[in-house]
Amino acid sequence: MGNSYGTIFRLTTFGESHGGAIGGVIDGCPAGIEIDTELIQQELDRRKPGQSEITTQRKETDEIEILSGIFEGKSLGTPIGFIIRNTDPRSKDYSHIETKFRPSHADFTYQEKYGIRDYRGGGRSSARETAMRVAAGAIAKLALEQLGVKIHGYVSKIGEITAPHYTEMDLGRTEENIVRCPDPVTAEAMIELVKKTRKDGDSIGGMVTAVISGVPAGLGEPVFDRFHAELGKAMLSINAVKGFQYGSGFASTGMKGSEHNDEYYTEGVRVRTRTNRSGGIQGGITNGEDIYFDVAFKPVATIMKEQQSVDEKGESTTVSGRGRHDPCVVPRAVPIVEAMAALVTFDFYLRNQTAKFGG
Amino acid sequence: MGNSYGTIFRLTTFGESHGGAIGGVIDGCPAGIEIDTELIQQELDRRKPGQSEITTQRKETDEIEILSGIFEGKSLGTPIGFIIRNTDPRSKDYSHIETKFRPSHADFTYQEKYGIRDYRGGGRSSARETAMRVAAGAIAKLALEQLGVKIHGYVSKIGEITAPHYTEMDLGRTEENIVRCPDPVTAEAMIELVKKTRKDGDSIGGMVTAVISGVPAGLGEPVFDRFHAELGKAMLSINAVKGFQYGSGFASTGMKGSEHNDEYYTEGVRVRTRTNRSGGIQGGITNGEDIYFDVAFKPVATIMKEQQSVDEKGESTTVSGRGRHDPCVVPRAVPIVEAMAALVTFDFYLRNQTAKFGG
Amino acid sequence: MGNSYGTIFRLTTFGESHGGAIGGVIDGCPAGIEIDTELIQQELDRRKPGQSEITTQRKETDEIEILSGIFEGKSLGTPIGFIIRNTDPRSKDYSHIETKFRPSHADFTYQEKYGIRDYRGGGRSSARETAMRVAAGAIAKLALEQLGVKIHGYVSKIGEITAPHYTEMDLGRTEENIVRCPDPVTAEAMIELVKKTRKDGDSIGGMVTAVISGVPAGLGEPVFDRFHAELGKAMLSINAVKGFQYGSGFASTGMKGSEHNDEYYTEGVRVRTRTNRSGGIQGGITNGEDIYFDVAFKPVATIMKEQQSVDEKGESTTVSGRGRHDPCVVPRAVPIVEAMAALVTFDFYLRNQTAKFGG
Amino acid sequence: MGNSYGTIFRLTTFGESHGGAIGGVIDGCPAGIEIDTELIQQELDRRKPGQSEITTQRKETDEIEILSGIFEGKSLGTPIGFIIRNTDPRSKDYSHIETKFRPSHADFTYQEKYGIRDYRGGGRSSARETAMRVAAGAIAKLALEQLGVKIHGYVSKIGEITAPHYTEMDLGRTEENIVRCPDPVTAEAMIELVKKTRKDGDSIGGMVTAVISGVPAGLGEPVFDRFHAELGKAMLSINAVKGFQYGSGFASTGMKGSEHNDEYYTEGVRVRTRTNRSGGIQGGITNGEDIYFDVAFKPVATIMKEQQSVDEKGESTTVSGRGRHDPCVVPRAVPIVEAMAALVTFDFYLRNQTAKFGG
Repeated sequence: MGNSYGTIFRLTTFGESHGGAIGGVIDGCPAGIEIDTELIQQELDRRKPGQSEITTQRKETDEIEILSGIFEGKSLGTPIGFIIRNTDPRSKDYSHIETKFRPSHADFTYQEKYGIRDYRGGGRSSARETAMRVAAGAIAKLALEQLGVKIHGYVSKIGEITAPHYTEMDLGRTEENIVRCPDPVTAEAMIELVKKTRKDGDSIGGMVTAVISGVPAGLGEPVFDRFHAELGKAMLSINAVKGFQYGSGFASTGMKGSEHNDEYYTEGVRVRTRTNRSGGIQGGITNGEDIYFDVAFKPVATIMKEQQSVDEKGESTTVSGRGRHDPCVVPRAVPIVEAMAALVTFDFYLRNQTAKFGG
Repeated sequence: MGNSYGTIFRLTTFGESHGGAIGGVIDGCPAGIEIDTELIQQELDRRKPGQSEITTQRKETDEIEILSGIFEGKSLGTPIGFIIRNTDPRSKDYSHIETKFRPSHADFTYQEKYGIRDYRGGGRSSARETAMRVAAGAIAKLALEQLGVKIHGYVSKIGEITAPHYTEMDLGRTEENIVRCPDPVTAEAMIELVKKTRKDGDSIGGMVTAVISGVPAGLGEPVFDRFHAELGKAMLSINAVKGFQYGSGFASTGMKGSEHNDEYYTEGVRVRTRTNRSGGIQGGITNGEDIYFDVAFKPVATIMKEQQSVDEKGESTTVSGRGRHDPCVVPRAVPIVEAMAALVTFDFYLRNQTAKFGG
Repeated sequence: MGNSYGTIFRLTTFGESHGGAIGGVIDGCPAGIEIDTELIQQELDRRKPGQSEITTQRKETDEIEILSGIFEGKSLGTPIGFIIRNTDPRSKDYSHIETKFRPSHADFTYQEKYGIRDYRGGGRSSARETAMRVAAGAIAKLALEQLGVKIHGYVSKIGEITAPHYTEMDLGRTEENIVRCPDPVTAEAMIELVKKTRKDGDSIGGMVTAVISGVPAGLGEPVFDRFHAELGKAMLSINAVKGFQYGSGFASTGMKGSEHNDEYYTEGVRVRTRTNRSGGIQGGITNGEDIYFDVAFKPVATIMKEQQSVDEKGESTTVSGRGRHDPCVVPRAVPIVEAMAALVTFDFYLRNQTAKFGG
Repeated sequence: MGNSYGTIFRLTTFGESHGGAIGGVIDGCPAGIEIDTELIQQELDRRKPGQSEITTQRKETDEIEILSGIFEGKSLGTPIGFIIRNTDPRSKDYSHIETKFRPSHADFTYQEKYGIRDYRGGGRSSARETAMRVAAGAIAKLALEQLGVKIHGYVSKIGEITAPHYTEMDLGRTEENIVRCPDPVTAEAMIELVKKTRKDGDSIGGMVTAVISGVPAGLGEPVFDRFHAELGKAMLSINAVKGFQYGSGFASTGMKGSEHNDEYYTEGVRVRTRTNRSGGIQGGITNGEDIYFDVAFKPVATIMKEQQSVDEKGESTTVSGRGRHDPCVVPRAVPIVEAMAALVTFDFYLRNQTAKFGG
C-alpha cells in the first residue's frame, strides 16, 4: 500500500529515520546479473549527508548490508534484502518538535492520516528513505549497463541560475564539482548561491535534468503505464519534487504542430527522428532516441528562521530549524533521480519481454 | 499490464478506435452509490468530437451502454462493465497510412513493440480510449460529490494566451464558452487562435489547470504512491501530455524556503495554511487545502501540412492529414483531466479507509 | 478487487447472470498469437447449459462477441474484450426468491457484504460468470498448444462412482460421452446416477481430474506463488469447489518419505523422476513431469425439494427450486477446470520469461 | 514476483537459509494496533527447530529483531520490517550436496528456473522462510483478536493415526503435548509413531486442521478471490503441502444436495445455519459460522536412507540425509498454518472496509 515500486523488478522499502534501520527488498530481479556490491556503496556515497561543504554537515556513513539474494557475486533470482543501520547519535535533538507541526513538512499530514507518528527526524517522511532507492537503483543500473543503457543526471538549475541544454555540455563532467552541474562556470555560480543561502539560514530550490540513452525502441505499456507516466510518478515520489516534464515539456503548450512534430528518417537499418521534441517517447513507448526530462525541487522546508505554526492541540507556536541543515538538496538528489530512472527503465525492459509471443 | 488504473477503484479499458467497440470495467466500486447514468452520458458529451466549431467535425455519438454492476439505480459492489460501439463510417479513410509512420504519432513505436498494429485511426493509441476514462471518472465524481469533493478543470493556456490564476476567476463559468476558459476575455482570444490554427491546417498546444476542493486531510500513501505522484501519473497517461506540476510547481525551483513554506494557523478546529504553495499536499498526503495542478498538452500530431517520414520498410515518404482534424485538443481534454483526477481522488479515499485500525 | 485473475496474462470478468451481458477483458496477452475464434466458441459450447440430457435443459446459446485486441486473426498485444449477451427470456422466474435466502447459495452472504444484491438468478454469484473464464482459457490454450502444452480434464468421480487412475485410461476419449469420463463403463454408471438424481429432484457431487502435460521445467514462483498454490486458488475459485489436491495429495499424509520421494534419473539430456508423486512440481516449480490434480465439487445447492430457510427480515420460510435445474454440474465443469489450468500455466510461462537475465 | 502475500496487509519475505538473514516487511498494516513484540517471539518459538524431542535437534534461536513501523508499542501505519539472523554454525555441512539433486527437494527445479542456486540448506526453498510468515501472522493475530476472531490449528493426522472431529475436542488443549493434537490419547500414539519413524531414519506425512471462529459475515471477494480460494492458496504455499479442503471438502463429492445443504434459521438477530458443511463460506464470502479446513502435508523429503539421484551433469549418484533431521514437520507446521490463516483473514477484513459506500 504505497511502499513498493515496480511491476516485475519491485522494490519495497521500510524504515523510519530514527528507528532501528532503514531497509529494502527487491523482488523480481532476474538471476545471473553480476553485482558488484562496491558500486552500490559508491552510489550511496553520492547521496549521503556530509559529503561536501554545501550539504548538511550531519555525518552518516550509510553503510549497506546485503542480506540475501546474491550468491558468489551474482543475483539468485530470489529477493535481495538489504539494510542500513541508523546511527545518528543526536536522536534526542528532536524533542523540541515532538508536538509541533513544522511548516511545509509532513508532520501534520501524517498525524491526520495515522493518528500517530514517529516525530523524530520526520520518521518515515524523511528523505533518508531515498537511500534505499539509490541502493536498488544501483542494481538496476548494473543490469542496464549490460544492456547498453546509460543514465546521466545533473543539476540544471538552482534558484535563477540555469545550465545550458544537455546537448551542449559534456555530461561526463558532472561529478567534477560538488554541485553536480557539468558546466564549470554555471557550477561555480551555483555553489556561491548555495553557500550564501546557508549563511542566510535559508534554503533554495532547483532542478535536476536527466538523460537516459541507449534505450531500445518498444519499452512502455499503453495506455495507463506509458513510459513517461511511470517516469513522472517515480520522480514525483521523491521528497520535495513539485513538477515533471519530458521532451519539449511545458514549452510545447506554446508550439504549433508543424514546429513540434519529429520527422522520421532512416539511418542504416534504424528509423530515427531528426528532432527529438518527443523526448524519446511516442504514444508512451520508447522510440530509441534519448529520453530526457526535468524534475523540479522546491526549497527544503527546514530553515533556521523562525516561522509561525501550530501544535497538536491547535495552539499557536513558533518553529525554527536547529544545527545542521541542507540549504539545497538538489546536488544530493542527482543520484536519487538516476536511481528512480533506472528502476523505471529496467522494469519496463522486463515487462517488455512478453510483448511478443515467442520472443 | 498497462490497461488498468487504480488500486481499489480500478478501471480497465479495452478497444481500438476502429474495432467493434471500446469498453471499460470498474472493479472495486463500493456498493450502494446512487448512479445517475444520464450524468455519465453528459460527461461523455463534453469529450465527444464534433461538439463545437473549434473541435474536429468528425461526428461520434459516443453513446454508452452499461452492461453490469448497477441495479435499480445503485452500484452492486460488483464490476461495472460498459461499452461504446464504434460507428464512424469512414474507416476506409486510413488505407493511405497503412504502412507509413506518421510523425510524432505512435505508429512506429507500436510496430516496434508488438510487431503488429491496427493502423486504422491509431488503433489503441487513439485518444478515443479516453472516453472510457471519462465514463469511469463520472462514477467516481458522483461518489466524491456525496463526500463533498468537487473537481473543476479549465483551459488555462493555448499557444501564448494565458488565463489568470484560478483564484482570480469564477470556475463555475467554465462551460459558458466552447474553449472552456472561465475568463470570457481570454476565452475569446483563445477561440480566435484555434480558428486561425485550423485555417492554417496546423495544430496548437495548450494547458489544462484543475482544482480539487473539499478533499479531507490524510489522503495519499507514502512513500511511492504520494497523492501528487499518482495524480501526475494519471495526467501523464493522457494522450499528448508532456508535463505536470502542482502547487508552486516549476516556479518553486527559483524560490527560497522562507518564501515558499506555508505557515500553519487554526481556523476553528481545523488546522489550515495561510498560503498554499504546497498545493494541498505535504509529504504526499493531503492537508485539506485546495489541490491545484497544471497539465501541459503538446500540439496534436495530425496536421494538414505535408511532412517527411518513412514507411515500414524504412523508405522515405511523405504524410499529411486528411479531412477533419482537431486543431487543439485542450478544450476536449478538460473532462478527461477531471475524470482522471476523480479516479485518483476516489481511489485514495478508499485506500485511506484502512489507514487507522478500528476506524 | 477480486474480479481479476493472473499476473501478466490477466483476465477481468464482469456481469450478472440477468443483466445486459457478461463480459471479460484479457490484458497482457502477447502480440502475434494466432487466434481462431471458432475454437473459443467450441469451448464455450462444452460449458453451455442444455448441451445434453443430463444437464439443465435451460437453453442459452452463449454466443461470444470479441470486441477488441484481435486484428486479421492475430492478437495485437492490446486488451482483448469480449461479451456474451444475456438472453434467457425467463428472467421473471426469480421473483419468488427476491427476499429469501436459498440454502447454501450466496444470497445471504452477498446481502451481508454489500447491503444490496441482484437476486435474479444469483446475479454475480451465478456460475454463468465462468463462461468468461472458458473464453479466456481458450485463448491461453491456443498459445499453450503452440508451446507443446496440453491440458486434459475429465470427470473422475460422481457420487461414489470412481474412474480408474488417469494413467490407465485414454484421455482422448473424454468427449465421447456426455458425462466426460474417458472410461466407457464408468461413464455409463455415472450417467445412470445423474439421471436418477434428477428424477429424485436432487443433486449430486463429484470430482474433476486434470492433467497438464508438456510443461517445461522452471515454471512457478517461489515462495507464495508456487505453481500448485496458484493452481489451487484458481480451482477453488470455481463455483461449488470444496477441495484441491495435486500429485499424491491427501494420500501423502499416510506415507513415509522412503515411499513418497521421487528418485531422479537421466533420460537422454533430460532429468526425469521414476515416480511422480510430486505431481510434476517440486518446491512450487515445475520439473517437466505431468502435472495432475483433483478438484472436489459439492452437489449443487438448487434442488427441487422443499427446504427450511429465512428471508431478509429473518423470518422463517421455505424454498424449493423450480423448473429446469442441473442435477450434477461436474460434466460441464470440465472445460472450466481446463480453462483455469490454462490461465495459470500460460501466466506462469510468461512470468518465467524474466527469471534469468539475458534470456 | 512471488515473494509477497496479501492485497492490503501485504507481507514480503526475503532470505536464504544460509545467507546473512531472513527477513520480512509488512506494508499496509493499519496504524494504532497495540503490538506486544513478546507475543511475536512466542509464536516463533512454537515453530523453531529443536523445541522438543520429536523435531529436528538442530538448534536455532530464531530471535526476531523489529526494525521499523512500531513506535511506543503501536503500529505506525508505515512498513514493519524485521529480520532473524542466520546463526547455524554448521553451514559447511552442505558441501556434499553442492552439485547433487536431492529427491523431492527443490534443488533441480531451482537450478532449471534460475540457472544458479544457493545449495546450502536449500537456500530460499528452505522451510526456514516460513518463520517470517509466523512473525507477520502474529501481528495479524493480535489485530484479529481485538476484532473477536480466534484461530486454532492442531495436528489431526499423522500416518494413519487420526484425531476426532474438531467439534469433539477441546482445542484449548493443543499445546499440552509436543505433537499438538488436542486429544491426549491420539497424541500419545502420534508421538510414538514419530519416534519410531525417526529411529528408522525415515519421515512421515500428516495433516493439520484449523478453525477460524468469530469471523463476521461478509469477508471474501467474489469471484476469483473467494475466501476459501485465498485460504487454499495460502496453505498450498507452505512447504510440503499437497492438498487443501474446507467444510465438507472431498467428502462432498459423494453427497446429495439434500444431504449437503445448510438450512438457515434465526438466532436472535443473527441468521445462522443448522449444519455447517459450507465451512463458514458461501459463494466465497463468510457467513459468520466457523471456518474449518484441512491441510495435507507429505512426508519431508530429507531421510537418512540412501536414494538414487543425479547430479548437475546428469550423472547417476546417491544421496542420503545427514545428522539432524525432522521426521515429521506437522507439529511445527501448526503455527505456520495459523499464521497464514491470520494473514488471509485480516487482509480480507481490511479489503471489506470498502465494500459498502459510506460504511
